[in-house]
Amino acid sequence: MSDSTVLPEAPFRTPLELREAPSGRVVDSAVDPLFVDRWSPRSFLPGPVPRELLATLFEAARWAPSSNNEQPWLYVYATDAWDRARFLEALAPGNRAWAEHAPALVFLFARRTTTDGRPYRTYAFDAGASWMSLALQARLLGLDTHPMGGFDPEKAYAATGVDPARYEAMIAIALGYRGPADALPVPLAGRERPSGRVPQATIAQEGCVAFTRAD
Amino acid sequence: MSDSTVLPEAPFRTPLELREAPSGRVVDSAVDPLFVDRWSPRSFLPGPVPRELLATLFEAARWAPSSNNEQPWLYVYATDAWDRARFLEALAPGNRAWAEHAPALVFLFARRTTTDGRPYRTYAFDAGASWMSLALQARLLGLDTHPMGGFDPEKAYAATGVDPARYEAMIAIALGYRGPADALPVPLAGRERPSGRVPQATIAQEGCVAFTRAD
Repeated sequence: MSDSTVLPEAPFRTPLELREAPSGRVVDSAVDPLFVDRWSPRSFLPGPVPRELLATLFEAARWAPSSNNEQPWLYVYATDAWDRARFLEALAPGNRAWAEHAPALVFLFARRTTTDGRPYRTYAFDAGASWMSLALQARLLGLDTHPMGGFDPEKAYAATGVDPARYEAMIAIALGYRGPADALPVPLAGRERPSGRVPQATIAQEGCVAFTRAD
Repeated sequence: MSDSTVLPEAPFRTPLELREAPSGRVVDSAVDPLFVDRWSPRSFLPGPVPRELLATLFEAARWAPSSNNEQPWLYVYATDAWDRARFLEALAPGNRAWAEHAPALVFLFARRTTTDGRPYRTYAFDAGASWMSLALQARLLGLDTHPMGGFDPEKAYAATGVDPARYEAMIAIALGYRGPADALPVPLAGRERPSGRVPQATIAQEGCVAFTRAD
């Protein structure tokens, strides 16, 4: 590889007309399988994620758009036993039970204000965009991610040294190569499948909103 | 196409070792060009976005992950002259000047609470993940998006009929096929290029955060 390799043509792909994925997910419109193929397993193989692939994930996350290019995201990750033990301690017990087998754990923080200290309305939204890029780049590498809202934020700040006055702990992420469902304890093994979604017509409407989920 | 077409093998792709994209963007690590290739133009061709491609975009957005699968996102879009005029009226004048040429305009709203009315900490974050899926699916179709924080939220609610007590207007999106820079007025034409990013080492750190952007 050279220091000035040129980006190839835009990666156009034809969306697939699919109605049922092997996962059991049913789509309402043609869509690139990248988006339907991603779901959040709890079973991970113990094998490590190569460091260069971790860098590729964070590189994808890096290029997400944000308001005024503020780039509010901050990822702190754990791969060695010492760091992972500390990160696991911050997770809710229900997540800790399976996430302890994931070879990498990540906390994603979002900066609460702009770099010059002004209010920043979309900092969480922008961090979410960055996270999605990471999750999709992971799939393109054959890796899987599982986002978690269940963690103790105070422990997350303590484990990572991140200042809670400046950053909000958004999610924890378990990361690795997907393992077999039967490696999980029975109650979790039964949940090891992709979730569904509300119909597209519920979440995308033309001109004026006619109904919403709670109507 | 059949009603039960099977999803093909996971769409693994080898990340490219690239240092400089034609856009001028320089990457710190190998990454799929999908993520680096996306940027937010202001020049759009007037040609419409076929309706089936709009559906593909919203389908990608639909499958994003969210806390407890709450799916807080709600997209309201405008393609005909009447709807677009109403949506344009809600944009900040600086955005209206170029966005009026985009063939589709979208407002993305995020539901402030869970479907059963409880507090929902990550609703904005989750909506951001959905938006990123839409933006990346757009690129895979050769389409471009431009997210805008500059709009009048009261006008966005009025234009779309969305209830501000239940939903927060997150961003507006201009959508279409990218046009030539010289179709823009001079001051905007000079800004028609991809933005850079802070170094990856600033936004992704192992174990414990050593420094942040404002340090």
